Amino acid sequence: MKPKTNRRSSGCPISYGLDVFGDKWTLLIIREIMLNGKRTYSEFLQADEGIATNILISRLKQLENDAIVEKYRDPNNRRSFVYHLTQKGRDLAPIILEIVIWSGVYDYRPNAMREVLEKILRDRSGFEAKLRKG
Amino acid sequence: MKPKTNRRSSGCPISYGLDVFGDKWTLLIIREIMLNGKRTYSEFLQADEGIATNILISRLKQLENDAIVEKYRDPNNRRSFVYHLTQKGRDLAPIILEIVIWSGVYDYRPNAMREVLEKILRDRSGFEAKLRKG
Repeated sequence: MKPKTNRRSSGCPISYGLDVFGDKWTLLIIREIMLNGKRTYSEFLQADEGIATNILISRLKQLENDAIVEKYRDPNNRRSFVYHLTQKGRDLAPIILEIVIWSGVYDYRPNAMREVLEKILRDRSGFEAKLRKG
Repeated sequence: MKPKTNRRSSGCPISYGLDVFGDKWTLLIIREIMLNGKRTYSEFLQADEGIATNILISRLKQLENDAIVEKYRDPNNRRSFVYHLTQKGRDLAPIILEIVIWSGVYDYRPNAMREVLEKILRDRSGFEAKLRKG
C-alpha cells in the first residue's frame, strides 16, 4: 500500500489510526453512515458541513482502500452505489462516542446538538453495541 | 472565535471535536505531550513522524487558541517555552486510548508498537486516570 501522507511510518498506533481516519472529512463521512444512516454519495453531499464533491470522492476512495467502507450497487438504482461500514469501520464506534462525550463537556456553542450524547449517557454499552453491529 | 476551516458549523459534537483536534499533526502533538512526556518545541520536532516546522508552529498556536495546551517560560531556559496540556487537553485521553485499542486490532505492520496498548489492556482505568491527571 502506498503512503497517503508524507509522514514517516513510526509504528505508533495513534499515528496508524490517524493515517486511516485522521482527517476531518473522513470521520464526518463515517459519522454520516454510522449515526445518521446515510448510504449514498448524494446523501453524503447533503451533510450539514457542506463537503465539496472532490473531497467526498477522494475520501470515499480512501475509505474503500482502507477497508473501512464497502461499496455495493444500489438494488433500487443500478446506476448508483450504496456504502456500508465494514467491521473495521464499525469498530470505530468507541472513538466516535468518546469524541461526542468530550464535545459534550467543552462545546458551549448555542446550537450544540445533544441527542447522541444523551443516548450515550443513558446506555453507552447498548448504544455502542448497536453501532458495532451495524 | 473565527472559523478555522471552511466547514459550516453544524452543531454536531463530532464536527466540533474535529474542528479542535481533527488534524493528524494536532493529535500527534497531543500524543507527544500526553504519552511521551515531551514539553518543548524542539522535542516535538524530533517526533518519529517528522513534523515540519511551519506545521508545528501553526498547530501549537491553534492548540493554544483552543485551550488544549498552555505555554509557559521554561524555568531552566528563559528564552524558550514549555507546553502543558490543560484539563480540556488531558480529557482527550479516552479518545487517544480508543484509537490505540482500535489500531491494536487492525494495524498489522511488522513495526507496530504495542507498549501503550498493553498498558491499557492491563489497567485501562488506572492508566486513563493518570493521563487525565497529567
